[in-house]
Amino acid sequence: VAWIGGRNGFLRLIDQTRLPNELVYRDCRTVEEVWQAIRTLQVRGAPAIGLAAAYGLVLAIRPTHPPLASGSARERLAAAASYLRTSRPTAVNLFWALDRMTRAAASTQASSQADLLDVLLQEAHHIYAEDLAMCRAIGEAGLPLLGDGMGVLTHCNAGALAASDYGTALAPLFLAAERGLRFTVYADETRPLLQGARLTAWELTRRGIDTVVICDNTAGQVMKEGRVQLVIVGADRIAANGDTANKIGTYGLAVLARAHRLPFYVAAPSSTFDFSAADGAAVPIEQRDPREVTHGFGRQTVPDGARVYNPAFDVTPAELITGIVTEKGLIRPVSPATIQQTLRTG
Amino acid sequence: VAWIGGRNGFLRLIDQTRLPNELVYRDCRTVEEVWQAIRTLQVRGAPAIGLAAAYGLVLAIRPTHPPLASGSARERLAAAASYLRTSRPTAVNLFWALDRMTRAAASTQASSQADLLDVLLQEAHHIYAEDLAMCRAIGEAGLPLLGDGMGVLTHCNAGALAASDYGTALAPLFLAAERGLRFTVYADETRPLLQGARLTAWELTRRGIDTVVICDNTAGQVMKEGRVQLVIVGADRIAANGDTANKIGTYGLAVLARAHRLPFYVAAPSSTFDFSAADGAAVPIEQRDPREVTHGFGRQTVPDGARVYNPAFDVTPAELITGIVTEKGLIRPVSPATIQQTLRTG
Repeated sequence: VAWIGGRNGFLRLIDQTRLPNELVYRDCRTVEEVWQAIRTLQVRGAPAIGLAAAYGLVLAIRPTHPPLASGSARERLAAAASYLRTSRPTAVNLFWALDRMTRAAASTQASSQADLLDVLLQEAHHIYAEDLAMCRAIGEAGLPLLGDGMGVLTHCNAGALAASDYGTALAPLFLAAERGLRFTVYADETRPLLQGARLTAWELTRRGIDTVVICDNTAGQVMKEGRVQLVIVGADRIAANGDTANKIGTYGLAVLARAHRLPFYVAAPSSTFDFSAADGAAVPIEQRDPREVTHGFGRQTVPDGARVYNPAFDVTPAELITGIVTEKGLIRPVSPATIQQTLRTG
Repeated sequence: VAWIGGRNGFLRLIDQTRLPNELVYRDCRTVEEVWQAIRTLQVRGAPAIGLAAAYGLVLAIRPTHPPLASGSARERLAAAASYLRTSRPTAVNLFWALDRMTRAAASTQASSQADLLDVLLQEAHHIYAEDLAMCRAIGEAGLPLLGDGMGVLTHCNAGALAASDYGTALAPLFLAAERGLRFTVYADETRPLLQGARLTAWELTRRGIDTVVICDNTAGQVMKEGRVQLVIVGADRIAANGDTANKIGTYGLAVLARAHRLPFYVAAPSSTFDFSAADGAAVPIEQRDPREVTHGFGRQTVPDGARVYNPAFDVTPAELITGIVTEKGLIRPVSPATIQQTLRTG
């Protein structure tokens, strides 16, 4: 996720649906293109979605001839924010970023379209810079969890593609590799869209980290064989009590980790917490197109007549989570009190 | 799995790799073709592999001009049995069927190739007939586990394609449907080769049973939501203590079932028990080609440089298994003693 150019610039994304076979960039010049990129998972990962949406609002008031009156620029902005909110329902960073951009617009006196655009572009750049710093800080906070020779299991993709730079769940791994630790990462391939096989394995191998891709159903066996000592995943939304919505399959992994007495960590920025959700039951779960399952690879793999259940996320109860790694420090154990304490004092 | 014709006949299989898109038959006229069909999973499922191998031995001594001397026919048979044993390592029914055919050959005085062939064809037909009866008996034994309105979760394919007629784990479901019960089956798609999505869903929907295909990683969520009340799977080999080798992912499902206090049943014929294996540690686990994971659907989904761990099976410890449904009755609880008792008295 990068903004190319200045006021007349555009949003450049890596089209994540094309990896690992092709590294293709997708340039978005309209709000509609950003909405589409989010909906079709060309850009995905909670922090990355937030960033894309922030820059999407900048595109909403890109320079016009003649310039818009301030009132209609602000109207356009509000409409774009409402529209972008409908792109995906679960990752809270989307709403967090849009709210923050909206507040920035509301708090400026800027009366021209150009001035308003400058304010918003600045704010989006701030979010981006904070995201970079956040990823590094998560990496540092999670680094003590790793040891030389370890096996680490992760699910879906919570790396640089899902955020900026180091990512979230992968940040401690990238940092550990830079500091010379040697370890093996088991990457769940993560059906139906294979973000683990396609994206996580791509990021890890590019950085020279020993990577083993497994089918999702092999995680239990890998744990039973003693191959992993740590499970770490990202998050799309964390409720006030620590219940965590993340890619479907995360919950099952947490149950398996508990059964094998393995530590199970979530890594996410503080913007992933949704204090308006008391617990996981309050988090809306996106249901996605059955064709992701039935025709995921171009060829039909499910007979006509069979139904499909394809939730994009599940919720892992806080009691199965050993700790949450945030840019403000490590929350462990996980409770409303420890969450408040770390996020407030951090 | 069906023998077409008499002495000069051949083995006809449904090519399971082509389902659900195409119903293609594969005719085998040589031992090599049978070996290939087993190795490439055109025929799969523990009892079906045993049947195919039994008929494969018949093909080993198919009529020749001039006829073979009895000694060389028997040599050819022994060589074919050794060869077919190398096709796949885990499912014990393969070895069981080959041993049984070899014993039948050893115990006959037949001195001509034709007479020996008749004996073997008869024995293979017996195995087939017993398999039919066995599937029905497993269906009857498992029927009481089902109730109207239930949700049932299964993994991989243990239906008619994996055996004859009713199959094993699906036999109680087919019988229940025939008797008017209504229920929903959640079929794990079962990566990497999607036997659940392609084969189980095909068998179930053809019989009008309400079928929901899920990604393997969604099973935990389906349990958490209270959608299933029973898990039932097949088996490739069961050790003397009840430890069960079955398709990779079965172990993880059993752990999840235990965490959700759901009954977890294995359905398999008595020929699946291997009393020479004291426990699951003695069962060899087949490692399959990484390309099943990296290129499973024609397109590369894992970057070069990443390794792959692709065991075909895992072992579920007996203590996670509520009961084993056999053609001789229901083994519950599962212990060496209850296994002996049911299989001996049945």
